[in-house]
Amino acid sequence: MEIKLAVAKTNKYATSESGDSVEVVERPNGGISVVMADGQSSGKGAKQISSLVVRKVISLLSEGVRDGAAARAASDYLFTERKGKVSATLNIVSIDLQTATMVITRNNPLPVYIASNDEICTFDDECNPIGLYRDTRPLISEMQLEPGLTVVLFTDGLVHAGSRTGDGLDITTFLEAHVEEEPDPQEIADALLRDAMELDRGRPVDDISVVVIQVSGRQSDSVRRMTVQLPLN
Amino acid sequence: MEIKLAVAKTNKYATSESGDSVEVVERPNGGISVVMADGQSSGKGAKQISSLVVRKVISLLSEGVRDGAAARAASDYLFTERKGKVSATLNIVSIDLQTATMVITRNNPLPVYIASNDEICTFDDECNPIGLYRDTRPLISEMQLEPGLTVVLFTDGLVHAGSRTGDGLDITTFLEAHVEEEPDPQEIADALLRDAMELDRGRPVDDISVVVIQVSGRQSDSVRRMTVQLPLN
Repeated sequence: MEIKLAVAKTNKYATSESGDSVEVVERPNGGISVVMADGQSSGKGAKQISSLVVRKVISLLSEGVRDGAAARAASDYLFTERKGKVSATLNIVSIDLQTATMVITRNNPLPVYIASNDEICTFDDECNPIGLYRDTRPLISEMQLEPGLTVVLFTDGLVHAGSRTGDGLDITTFLEAHVEEEPDPQEIADALLRDAMELDRGRPVDDISVVVIQVSGRQSDSVRRMTVQLPLN
Repeated sequence: MEIKLAVAKTNKYATSESGDSVEVVERPNGGISVVMADGQSSGKGAKQISSLVVRKVISLLSEGVRDGAAARAASDYLFTERKGKVSATLNIVSIDLQTATMVITRNNPLPVYIASNDEICTFDDECNPIGLYRDTRPLISEMQLEPGLTVVLFTDGLVHAGSRTGDGLDITTFLEAHVEEEPDPQEIADALLRDAMELDRGRPVDDISVVVIQVSGRQSDSVRRMTVQLPLN
């Protein structure tokens, strides 16, 4: 088996900085975690918030703290730092090799899409963003690592795309049409981002981040790989 | 312009864990940094060391600490934690968008290869790994971000490849042959790793990590991308 993870990310039109932060970190007991946060509003202020949240979470995860505890710590930290006045959404998805599971942690009203060989479902139980209240707890879903499992998560820029014209992205239909061929995760992330940007006529109304994680059954060559592509202005 | 970064990484034969750690982190004032450490010996103990070093460095970089100061802090920290008995090599390469430069920081006797449009040179002045002495300082080289700039760094598994049979990799010749076509950084990293593994008959005598960073002149689509590929046993 092999895990493939892809991120595609763009800024709100005419802002120099995305208010979203996405980072990947190695887990000390084996595996990786991807952490995605969207800070309230956009631009520099939002970036500071999302970056503070992601930094806190990856620092705790890299010390072996469990995902749920890391999310609660980030919430308390943001609440304390900004006196409950600023919120952020937070998602963590971990490939935990100790338990051979994928662990999805949500402090984000937006659903996480989970596609397996049989069906596409959403992990969309109600939950709160972090930072506004004491004792904000994340929702956690854990599942066995099995070939064919694909998880898609995103920030709200993706679902707000097209809102200026009353259009919108139908993510379930998109995944139904594409996920069975087991396309490369980067293709899924790129296609969702491209469709969203087209709905916004190339001028995204909000920062957009898309993360896709896929468990593939293909024979692996025992080489770990990572790539980053960073456009400069 | 666009920055492309690629990592390829494999374990010493018959060890479950690589003693190398490589992580990428976003810089708070714009840009990214890649941090690579190789802990003394191999297996679990080495991984603990390299992971401790990389964690310390990315945590400081993500707070805005400059690369040289982060490397010195990591050295003091390792020296204090392990009483000067354990060493690690450390490399940091940063794309700093504040200064529009690439900053290469070395606490590693191995050279870093720097290919520009004109020539291939090595940054190979003598320097020490961290952890063994107080006041270990890194060497730092800084250069303008210009299309065609390609930087290649690696852990010692790459240069030890073939040592059982007296063979070795000629990295300069390899880069001279390939770098002008501006191949994808992942292709360079994969090819170097593949050649090294072939010299070791598919059974690497040491953990190997290769990092390639390329400044490309190609028109970018303003989308940031990241991929991770993680083989499972």
